[in-house]
Amino acid sequence: MKSYREELWMDVPGRRSLVNITPQVESALRESGIREGLCLVNAMHITASVFINDDESGLHRDYDDWLEKLAPHEPVAGYRHNRTGEDNADAHLKRQVMGREVVIAVTGGALDFGPWEQVFYGEFDGGRRKRVLVKIIGE
Amino acid sequence: MKSYREELWMDVPGRRSLVNITPQVESALRESGIREGLCLVNAMHITASVFINDDESGLHRDYDDWLEKLAPHEPVAGYRHNRTGEDNADAHLKRQVMGREVVIAVTGGALDFGPWEQVFYGEFDGGRRKRVLVKIIGE
Amino acid sequence: MKSYREELWMDVPGRRSLVNITPQVESALRESGIREGLCLVNAMHITASVFINDDESGLHRDYDDWLEKLAPHEPVAGYRHNRTGEDNADAHLKRQVMGREVVIAVTGGALDFGPWEQVFYGEFDGGRRKRVLVKIIGE
Repeated sequence: MKSYREELWMDVPGRRSLVNITPQVESALRESGIREGLCLVNAMHITASVFINDDESGLHRDYDDWLEKLAPHEPVAGYRHNRTGEDNADAHLKRQVMGREVVIAVTGGALDFGPWEQVFYGEFDGGRRKRVLVKIIGE
Repeated sequence: MKSYREELWMDVPGRRSLVNITPQVESALRESGIREGLCLVNAMHITASVFINDDESGLHRDYDDWLEKLAPHEPVAGYRHNRTGEDNADAHLKRQVMGREVVIAVTGGALDFGPWEQVFYGEFDGGRRKRVLVKIIGE
Repeated sequence: MKSYREELWMDVPGRRSLVNITPQVESALRESGIREGLCLVNAMHITASVFINDDESGLHRDYDDWLEKLAPHEPVAGYRHNRTGEDNADAHLKRQVMGREVVIAVTGGALDFGPWEQVFYGEFDGGRRKRVLVKIIGE
């Protein structure tokens, strides 16, 4: 069994943004030399997500509107977590809807994806450097 | 390390439906010959889910009502994604709540499940053929 | 390839609670002797979650308020599932938001975590014994 590990550094300027990281994950897979196995991609921070969906800008704005409706940023004082001096409680909630991680099948040396699947980093509390972990095991 | 891959084809007639795919996943596991490892089951399409819960029809209708409340299909024009000519933006949202994939432990040649765990395909934009990927690695 | 399996028994007294199970998962990993691989941690019951987030009590109360708003326990008769004699339909819904499982990279014999990542058991229908499964594969 082989294993491979790589960190991707993210630095999203605004509070919230979705970034397509499929090319970086594919590059890590090539680097690993693994042909058959599983590829885990996870946010290493708890106010960010890694998820798989469509690379369509209208949909990305729909996600943002929807998450803001399900777990609004304001009023900041409405969350107990923010009494610790933070203002990012909503980001901890949004991240649970979108998920921490994806596990992707590796087949024939490629990410085994359906026609529209792309991997995204979802930042819900940006403005500082954060990491995404890519861990691949297989042969 | 062994690996095994199988696609399940789904063709759900209405817009939304939940289908128990546990027998197909068990059959793939038997076919694989793998006794110890991990089994990934994921939707290959981005308006569908694979998740684990109870096979109880009342609960399935509760899920449908609830998802429709969290991310209603109508008004179709309320989503930016639908300006691309689609009417399935809600399905992309519902799928995030229910999840893309499950990872199941394989122990002694069986899916290592608690008493009520069953695997479901969740279709949120049906009426056409879609695929589920089963990828198993282990020994 | 090595594999290791351990069940953690949970017994949460009230209806809902979040329990940090990171020490138990770390102990299972040490026991396994696995240095490189993947660690799956999942609820074996369908009204409970395993998820990764912050160990901050204010946030945990925010999660509880938020989940109760998204999928309220009352009115119990508002869910079809509860006509089977159960009163836990809301728990099946809450668990979908928080997730069934996490997959954690194992690197150098440790859980490969970002600075604040901790593993939690989320109980949404407590008062009885339930199990969490830890399955680790690797070398």
